[in-house]
Amino acid sequence: MKLQTLIFTVAISAILGMNGCAPKQGTNTPTQKNIKTERFKSTDANLQKLTDIAFEKSYGYEITRSLTTEIGSRLAGSKNEARARDWAMDKFKELGFKDVQINLFHVDGWARGREQAFIVIPHLEKGDYEPQKLFVTALGGSVATPEGGITADLAFFENFEALKNAAKGGLDGKIVYITGKMEKTRDGAGYGPANQKRRNGATEAAKRGAIAVLIRSVGTDSHRFPHTGQMGYEDGVKKIPIGALSAPDADQIDRMFANANAEAESGKTVRVHLELATKNLGRLPSGNVYADIIGSTHPEEIVMIGAHLDSWDLGTGAIDDGAGVGIVMGAAKVLMESGFKPERTVRVILFGSEEIGLKGGFAYAKQHKDELGAIVVATESDFGAAQIYGLQAGKGATNKASTDRLYSKLKYLGLEMVAGKADGGPDIIPLNRKGVPVIDLKQNGYDYFDLHHTPDDTFDKIDPKEMAQNVAVYANFIYLASKANVDFSDNKNGE
Amino acid sequence: MKLQTLIFTVAISAILGMNGCAPKQGTNTPTQKNIKTERFKSTDANLQKLTDIAFEKSYGYEITRSLTTEIGSRLAGSKNEARARDWAMDKFKELGFKDVQINLFHVDGWARGREQAFIVIPHLEKGDYEPQKLFVTALGGSVATPEGGITADLAFFENFEALKNAAKGGLDGKIVYITGKMEKTRDGAGYGPANQKRRNGATEAAKRGAIAVLIRSVGTDSHRFPHTGQMGYEDGVKKIPIGALSAPDADQIDRMFANANAEAESGKTVRVHLELATKNLGRLPSGNVYADIIGSTHPEEIVMIGAHLDSWDLGTGAIDDGAGVGIVMGAAKVLMESGFKPERTVRVILFGSEEIGLKGGFAYAKQHKDELGAIVVATESDFGAAQIYGLQAGKGATNKASTDRLYSKLKYLGLEMVAGKADGGPDIIPLNRKGVPVIDLKQNGYDYFDLHHTPDDTFDKIDPKEMAQNVAVYANFIYLASKANVDFSDNKNGE
Repeated sequence: MKLQTLIFTVAISAILGMNGCAPKQGTNTPTQKNIKTERFKSTDANLQKLTDIAFEKSYGYEITRSLTTEIGSRLAGSKNEARARDWAMDKFKELGFKDVQINLFHVDGWARGREQAFIVIPHLEKGDYEPQKLFVTALGGSVATPEGGITADLAFFENFEALKNAAKGGLDGKIVYITGKMEKTRDGAGYGPANQKRRNGATEAAKRGAIAVLIRSVGTDSHRFPHTGQMGYEDGVKKIPIGALSAPDADQIDRMFANANAEAESGKTVRVHLELATKNLGRLPSGNVYADIIGSTHPEEIVMIGAHLDSWDLGTGAIDDGAGVGIVMGAAKVLMESGFKPERTVRVILFGSEEIGLKGGFAYAKQHKDELGAIVVATESDFGAAQIYGLQAGKGATNKASTDRLYSKLKYLGLEMVAGKADGGPDIIPLNRKGVPVIDLKQNGYDYFDLHHTPDDTFDKIDPKEMAQNVAVYANFIYLASKANVDFSDNKNGE
Repeated sequence: MKLQTLIFTVAISAILGMNGCAPKQGTNTPTQKNIKTERFKSTDANLQKLTDIAFEKSYGYEITRSLTTEIGSRLAGSKNEARARDWAMDKFKELGFKDVQINLFHVDGWARGREQAFIVIPHLEKGDYEPQKLFVTALGGSVATPEGGITADLAFFENFEALKNAAKGGLDGKIVYITGKMEKTRDGAGYGPANQKRRNGATEAAKRGAIAVLIRSVGTDSHRFPHTGQMGYEDGVKKIPIGALSAPDADQIDRMFANANAEAESGKTVRVHLELATKNLGRLPSGNVYADIIGSTHPEEIVMIGAHLDSWDLGTGAIDDGAGVGIVMGAAKVLMESGFKPERTVRVILFGSEEIGLKGGFAYAKQHKDELGAIVVATESDFGAAQIYGLQAGKGATNKASTDRLYSKLKYLGLEMVAGKADGGPDIIPLNRKGVPVIDLKQNGYDYFDLHHTPDDTFDKIDPKEMAQNVAVYANFIYLASKANVDFSDNKNGE
């Protein structure tokens, strides 16, 4: 009893401590400004009301806290992803949604097992040597190393291009090592180029006779976390295992190669022991969960906002994409609480199995193929929880007049108009390809790839005020887009 | 052949890339300023020469690079610590030291094995549940859990005081969980209070019937690394295992307790599976390595600068204390290269087994007990590689006039006079207790406990310019202190 009282007291203190403290000055967010809510003043009283609710109630932040604390990681096809669908069903109902739908589909299940790596021959081979541990993780979809692992010399490549330009053959029995840093930018433009080694490294190495691949993680941090992420194999090419090393471990190997090179005549090299015990689990269930606020005058027309419910297995999927889940569910809750009735239907959708190839988006496009024309605009929040800085119009089919009008209404929340063409977000791409109009609400992703796909993707990294700004932007957006006179469906006014 | 050429080319690029790039803007160092070397202008041409060499040559940085790359981690009593002594012997000779000494002693060897933890019952028990992984590490010296680990409910304590104030008994079969954050300060003042749970948590929990302890790591970061460090047992109290959780994992448990409390009547709790497979290795060799620049006129008088050669096993011991090794060896090299002959002998000493209880310092005090009076002043660099901001006079026995004169000469390097009493650094404490005069050259430790005792303590975290400032300060210090007319041996001028 005494203990229970104690626990009660300290738990209450913990709650107060958590709520009472200033927004976390995460070391991962040096570029984030403190959000100045007092500058978010709209001339439109209805929009202001939505923004005020978003900042007062913290719905988004609390939803993300619930998902990441109660479920944790949510790997595509896993039991935890299934539990997250149940969580979503309950949470939608708790928020006041009436009709919640789950659309199941199936995916190829995959899981990591024991994984470890060591440098067994470094520059200095003197004396009785203890191997240097490397922080490694298998890339999603990778085959396993043979049981007990493999031990082989590394073949060094400065980047993926260097490997692609290397002669076919000559790497028999080697582990290809691909280093090279990713550029850190607000819009994540460095991800695509850096990601080639993750996607295609195993294939290009196998074509040259290698038995495995290690890459410097696709990420922008200097912490000892490897970044996972889906890899790919090319049909007809031998499948070899591929893992990622943390940035400091890659730095260490780069230094050893510099040393080895300085003594090249001695034949010194860097030899590594690598064990990646992955397994394929066969077909497993995954699914999309969605709920609607039914439109008052045009219920058949849909404004869709989404996020993805699955995450990688290493962290608890807070910025990728628990934050998105909180932002879109929270925005819909804000709209409900405002009392404003949307003229069109607002659909909040949480996709499954995004991480392993946008499976949820493709499944929706297939399962709802005859209803895609009903979607007047769609967008997905899947780039963390930092402040939204801009609106970007969609590929080809977004009406410029409507987008401009939308922008004129949203800019008070700190937005700029962003050049280039939106794709709507990963799971919206399959819908956009079928003609669904899209926009992007661009988040500051400068620090996103510090945490992306690592164990460090946890709830403490989210700033509640930045998150509230996201919820406010989405609440404003769905309110505006659900007006029946707004047309995103065609680009009649040129561009 | 072709591959070798390729490797050669990319390795050269890697070297250029490493040397050519701007000082690392580590995300761990938000408070560090860029070092403005142009402001380090002394009116004393000799001091200026030492500083110029320190910044031009990067000896300290290169020495630390060599140690952390070629040896890696250096656990007390391990084979790698022995290799580090060989490395030190070679490095001293390479730098031009003639007479290098190794003083061996023995320590109780300890090593970690397999270690893992999972939350098996969280707040939400619905559905088929996958345990949530916790990032855990055994504290140094901890006994192991029974084979296969233990599974038990956590008993929550807000901090170590709450545990000490709890009734004896009542925790039978529980795992005590102690949370509570460490304060982040420039001088590391938060370490002592936060460290009580690490030092004494196992004893206080065992007195109350608990079977194991988990603490929120003693550290100031929000990354998913547990911080290790030496723990202690009290004679006559049952030894139970103790491990540390990363800050985000502790946050997760704190949130679960907040949830569990909100539904206290349901009897929900947080249950954890914990496995810490540590082992005692018996008596193992450790040792101190030192080398002298012999004094030109008073060779029998010693100015001692030290650091410790051992590290914890999780990282590569870069800031703790590869940096110190680089700083003191580098400073001596700068003095040698300047051509100035010290009047007194300058002794550079690298202690062994500091991490497990200042074993190297105690061994030196014992092995050299009849020569301690020859040391005119001693200090150790063991607080990272960030800029030195101050000089602090020693406990009781430091001559104020000499310290003031030293300060007036050193302040051009950005130093202030720091109140309080120096202890000389961890391994110098045993010497200071025997009357050896000490000073502290205080480093900015604001970010030190972000990395301290974690896997993330790696070479990439060191800023070469900050490190060069350290080397300059130490080179200036040994030059000045080795003048025969400087007396640190008594506090004749009051205080």
